[in-house]
Amino acid sequence: MQESAIVLLSGGLDSATCLAIARQRGYRCHALTFDYGQRSLAEIEAARSQALAQRVAGHRVLQVPLGEIGGSALTDHAIEVPSPGKEGIPATYVPARNTIFLSHALAWAEADGAAAIFIGVNALDYSGYPDCRPEYIEAFRRLMQVATKSGVEGRAITLEAPLIDRSKAEIIRAGSALGVDYANTLSCYQADSAGLACGQCESCELRRQGFAAAGIEDPTRYRRPAKS
Amino acid sequence: MQESAIVLLSGGLDSATCLAIARQRGYRCHALTFDYGQRSLAEIEAARSQALAQRVAGHRVLQVPLGEIGGSALTDHAIEVPSPGKEGIPATYVPARNTIFLSHALAWAEADGAAAIFIGVNALDYSGYPDCRPEYIEAFRRLMQVATKSGVEGRAITLEAPLIDRSKAEIIRAGSALGVDYANTLSCYQADSAGLACGQCESCELRRQGFAAAGIEDPTRYRRPAKS
Repeated sequence: MQESAIVLLSGGLDSATCLAIARQRGYRCHALTFDYGQRSLAEIEAARSQALAQRVAGHRVLQVPLGEIGGSALTDHAIEVPSPGKEGIPATYVPARNTIFLSHALAWAEADGAAAIFIGVNALDYSGYPDCRPEYIEAFRRLMQVATKSGVEGRAITLEAPLIDRSKAEIIRAGSALGVDYANTLSCYQADSAGLACGQCESCELRRQGFAAAGIEDPTRYRRPAKS
Repeated sequence: MQESAIVLLSGGLDSATCLAIARQRGYRCHALTFDYGQRSLAEIEAARSQALAQRVAGHRVLQVPLGEIGGSALTDHAIEVPSPGKEGIPATYVPARNTIFLSHALAWAEADGAAAIFIGVNALDYSGYPDCRPEYIEAFRRLMQVATKSGVEGRAITLEAPLIDRSKAEIIRAGSALGVDYANTLSCYQADSAGLACGQCESCELRRQGFAAAGIEDPTRYRRPAKS
């Protein structure tokens, strides 16, 4: 029987690639997207389009109350999205976001008997978020073993982070080879309601540099050109 | 300045006691309750009453979509609440419940600069849930250190589980000494809308035995007497 996987799907470039990799590895994929009070609901639309294009077995959009908790430029509109290049962990960091996302994925995986969870974090061309690093993924793996009935009973669910050590250019090349349509992905922290990217934030910058380094044309629709 | 703590408050006996202990330790306490599709909404009312009686600095009730995920007798009404005494982890186990609860507590603690999170799990008189054991708490502590900006920057949030190795009778004696009014707590897995406990489920049985062993009168309002 084909094994199932829960794949976190944000609507961004990384998670779209991660889904394509999970499919290539032979899993029956269920996509999981969160409506968490993010600035741009166009992200969720991009996730729906990816889920459809990649013919997932199911797609859930779960509401989680991160907007009520705040503490981030992405969920509290009183905090400005910073320009790229500042030192340290930027204001776009959302407290415990991946822990909240993975805990729901774990619940779904256990309830439905899925064998694996896929998350598209990468720790190379990234914003320095603590919950995108290999030590975080390792700590969540350890938690999964002791947190669940399936873990205690020896039917462990695995946590896969296939992009963790890849550059943005490598991710784009891998996804392109697997047929991912990046025109239907959205990386921008402050896209408008039509899905146009700002072209200025750190996420736009990482994306643009990635396409350039991969030698692949960037299909992103930007509102403004790159800063010179 | 008085340090803050986020205290998970379910409306049950353990979490009410845990809150009293956190207050005794000098924390300014913020209570956190989840509306997760549990069978009995009377639990949430009990949590509100405890939060009020114990004069918390704030109380949030967050909605999380465990009912959509299912996989438990507590969130899927098609699964029956089992009688006590069966072998193994019972059908009342909710996949990844404490991981989902703690991840939100972590987000709130980090967003608001709280120093600690309190959770009232105990691994002695309990239903065998994997996410109530010391090894689970230890794994979540490790995760917290690497998951958050505060952890990475050396301002670690601590996770306190002061009941982990106490018997139900010890918990009841400790809470009674701190003035907890157990009449306003609810442990039953299937209380009715008026807050009457079934008197038959494993949680009712553990509670009843705890009061008997503590030599303290049980103020619980049961629909039916104990099984003989």
